[in-house]
Amino acid sequence: MAERKIQDLFGKPIEVVNMGLATMVEPLKAQNVPVADVDWRPPKDGIKHLRFLKNGRSIDEANEEAVARIKKARPVLIGMGLAKDVIPGYKPNLFLHAGPPITWERMCGPVKGAVMGALIYEDMAKDEAEAEKIAASGKIEFAPCHHYHTVGPMAGVVSPHMPVFIIENKAFGNKAYCTINEGLGKVLRFGGMGPDVYAKLKWLQTDLYPILDAAIRSLPNGIDIKALIAQALHMGDECHNRNRAATSLFLRAIAPALARTSKDNESLAKVIEFIDKNDHFFLNLSMPAGKAAVEPAEGIEGSSIVTVMARNGTDFGIRISCMPDRWFTAPAGMVQGLYFPGFSEKDANPDIGDSTVTETAGYGGFAMAAAPAIVQFVGGTPQDAIATTLEMYEITFSEHEGFTIPVLNFRGTPLGIDIRKVMETGILPKINTGIAHKNPGVGGIGAGILRAPEKAFRDAFDAFSQLCK
Amino acid sequence: MAERKIQDLFGKPIEVVNMGLATMVEPLKAQNVPVADVDWRPPKDGIKHLRFLKNGRSIDEANEEAVARIKKARPVLIGMGLAKDVIPGYKPNLFLHAGPPITWERMCGPVKGAVMGALIYEDMAKDEAEAEKIAASGKIEFAPCHHYHTVGPMAGVVSPHMPVFIIENKAFGNKAYCTINEGLGKVLRFGGMGPDVYAKLKWLQTDLYPILDAAIRSLPNGIDIKALIAQALHMGDECHNRNRAATSLFLRAIAPALARTSKDNESLAKVIEFIDKNDHFFLNLSMPAGKAAVEPAEGIEGSSIVTVMARNGTDFGIRISCMPDRWFTAPAGMVQGLYFPGFSEKDANPDIGDSTVTETAGYGGFAMAAAPAIVQFVGGTPQDAIATTLEMYEITFSEHEGFTIPVLNFRGTPLGIDIRKVMETGILPKINTGIAHKNPGVGGIGAGILRAPEKAFRDAFDAFSQLCK
Repeated sequence: MAERKIQDLFGKPIEVVNMGLATMVEPLKAQNVPVADVDWRPPKDGIKHLRFLKNGRSIDEANEEAVARIKKARPVLIGMGLAKDVIPGYKPNLFLHAGPPITWERMCGPVKGAVMGALIYEDMAKDEAEAEKIAASGKIEFAPCHHYHTVGPMAGVVSPHMPVFIIENKAFGNKAYCTINEGLGKVLRFGGMGPDVYAKLKWLQTDLYPILDAAIRSLPNGIDIKALIAQALHMGDECHNRNRAATSLFLRAIAPALARTSKDNESLAKVIEFIDKNDHFFLNLSMPAGKAAVEPAEGIEGSSIVTVMARNGTDFGIRISCMPDRWFTAPAGMVQGLYFPGFSEKDANPDIGDSTVTETAGYGGFAMAAAPAIVQFVGGTPQDAIATTLEMYEITFSEHEGFTIPVLNFRGTPLGIDIRKVMETGILPKINTGIAHKNPGVGGIGAGILRAPEKAFRDAFDAFSQLCK
Repeated sequence: MAERKIQDLFGKPIEVVNMGLATMVEPLKAQNVPVADVDWRPPKDGIKHLRFLKNGRSIDEANEEAVARIKKARPVLIGMGLAKDVIPGYKPNLFLHAGPPITWERMCGPVKGAVMGALIYEDMAKDEAEAEKIAASGKIEFAPCHHYHTVGPMAGVVSPHMPVFIIENKAFGNKAYCTINEGLGKVLRFGGMGPDVYAKLKWLQTDLYPILDAAIRSLPNGIDIKALIAQALHMGDECHNRNRAATSLFLRAIAPALARTSKDNESLAKVIEFIDKNDHFFLNLSMPAGKAAVEPAEGIEGSSIVTVMARNGTDFGIRISCMPDRWFTAPAGMVQGLYFPGFSEKDANPDIGDSTVTETAGYGGFAMAAAPAIVQFVGGTPQDAIATTLEMYEITFSEHEGFTIPVLNFRGTPLGIDIRKVMETGILPKINTGIAHKNPGVGGIGAGILRAPEKAFRDAFDAFSQLCK
């Protein structure tokens, strides 16, 4: 088992680490002895520390290379386009979804709802009944966003005529894609259906997209998304479920160009209002920035770093660097969270979305210590937020010097989930996420926190072990 | 002496409070026992806890009324105007300055530089030599900003044709005023002089002011500055020396109106760029919001709450609620800080500016725990920032429920400096501030932290004691 380095907020070792029942340490707490509660489980029997491949290659060296590539990434927003025109390999009948591969039959409610809604948005179906028939007919090809350099929050459905952001990783030249964030509530990405949902999507396509695209393309250097994330982490965001600062910084960065390229100021005002009214607007830039950053770390022989972590609402899945094409899956978990008025846990779909790309890339839930106010959205206390980040250092291979957390004395965020450390410590990645209604058509009903399921990591570890001495 | 309630980050009492030499507790620190270092001095001989006026009025009740009025305040940006047109009682030859009253002869370099620069800006002098002659001639009437419901950062010079923001406290109907923030470096408010300084001031008057004013006035409810401050405190600002989030939120709030009222999109783009390039833009909204909030708390019989705290670079001065017209002054202190390249402590002017209105109103330096990244600008560590806020609870009468600090479990900011507590504890208010060059014409050279001088509080306490049983 790896050495435990639980520290207090300022990097000093905690005197007592409680790795068992909370009641064990109550007397200490009553005397104000600093105690860190860690949701810990004993290491699995037979977990050995893997150091070398059978061919002698060092796993640590491979992992160093993986995290170095992620750190070196420089994701920049360079423009927008329709999915069918800009995503390489796109086909007319291709519909992307979040998470690992899944058939129509096994799709959860919100993904089904989003697929049906997208068919209506595409004018491929006149109503939900027809959409359902077409979706089930086999005429639509479903594939994970991740297979197309794309990420999608929640249901993550991308259809041919949806506008997407284009992020280029200037350090490596690879690109990643993501749709536009529609806001919270009854929206397509949470499985929402209905005329208002389609009308908003159409407005995004006909109004917001061309105005935003013209402004972005007028900037010779694009917009440096990595720099915005780094700043936002100093401004109370973690850039997964809190993007208020990053959305503000994005608007600051784009607004002069919007003014210069705008031909109709009332349309421009509506675009700015749309961004201003949606603190999550930046999520759909934060996510592809993470995808663009992590993709160059895929395919490194001997690396045990998680390069993809995603959920389709039915299955949770990961991919690791040295086996870039293989998914390791497990049933998606249930989220502990805060619900919008009128909804409760019994309405909730299991964990869903590609947004865990942020945790994979070294921010999001792993940087929650930077975002104490997020607990008003996802639940828990500011202490929990700080403890989450401190705990995630236990299962990551490195720290991201480009993304620092002021309250932890500007320590870099936990970067590079190492499946070896996950199995050795028994600590599973902590994710914060939105919650979709389990039925198609309803939409978002809250947000919360959960752990990734162990099985995916165990299966990946077992497969990885086969390669090792 | 009042009970000491030093707490750790999560409100738990600190086990050991070191109120003496740091070396005393080194052995404890080496063993990782949590120790809070407090810059403490023994209470002055003869300080007694004052509870009632001679007429029997309760000081605590008076103070409750004072802080209740500050909390109830609702400062809203309603428009802009030229100082001569909108500040009540303005006269053609009136030049306002920061801090307590001061004659031309005793003014420090940066205030002299700002006065001379303002005379050139006003076309009342053709060059610096003539400006100096006019300033010394007695033809110019100098008065503190605070005597005209106005506040000015650093030198704080306001001249007749400078555009000012108009903040209305919607809860009480009073108004406050402040000029536009010019940015850092060689600018008038730091005493900077030269063609580039005047050109920027002219552009603010001819371009930025009319465009911004039209946008603000197009909003029927104005812009709620209190709400922006409250949000910014959850986004890593303390709204004195860190205003990056608040500046961003202000741009979000005004941008749709700017787009709708703009007649020339290139000018609009330049206005937005000016705001985007100046993270301190919001300071000149944060300050008059504080002034508008605190003024209704002036003149409450028996209240020992500080309602004005300001510096002119020569003298530091306070006024307390029950003696609203009387200044208690002391020599302005020297700032410990970080300097821009090429400058050092020997170039620094003493502490200067009305920006301490933010600490008076319950944010700024007193809310530094909300802004750990500010230490990159003013020096120190994130721990220092948190310790500053915790210490300021010791000398404030209340906590501002409208301004909360996430990392302190959403505790309200320290509100209402009570001169009794300052004298009883020996803890002097901690201020973070910009640093001006001591010579006229140079400008800003850094930022840092200092304590308010004791004499002003002791004199106020002595005068207050005369009224008490």
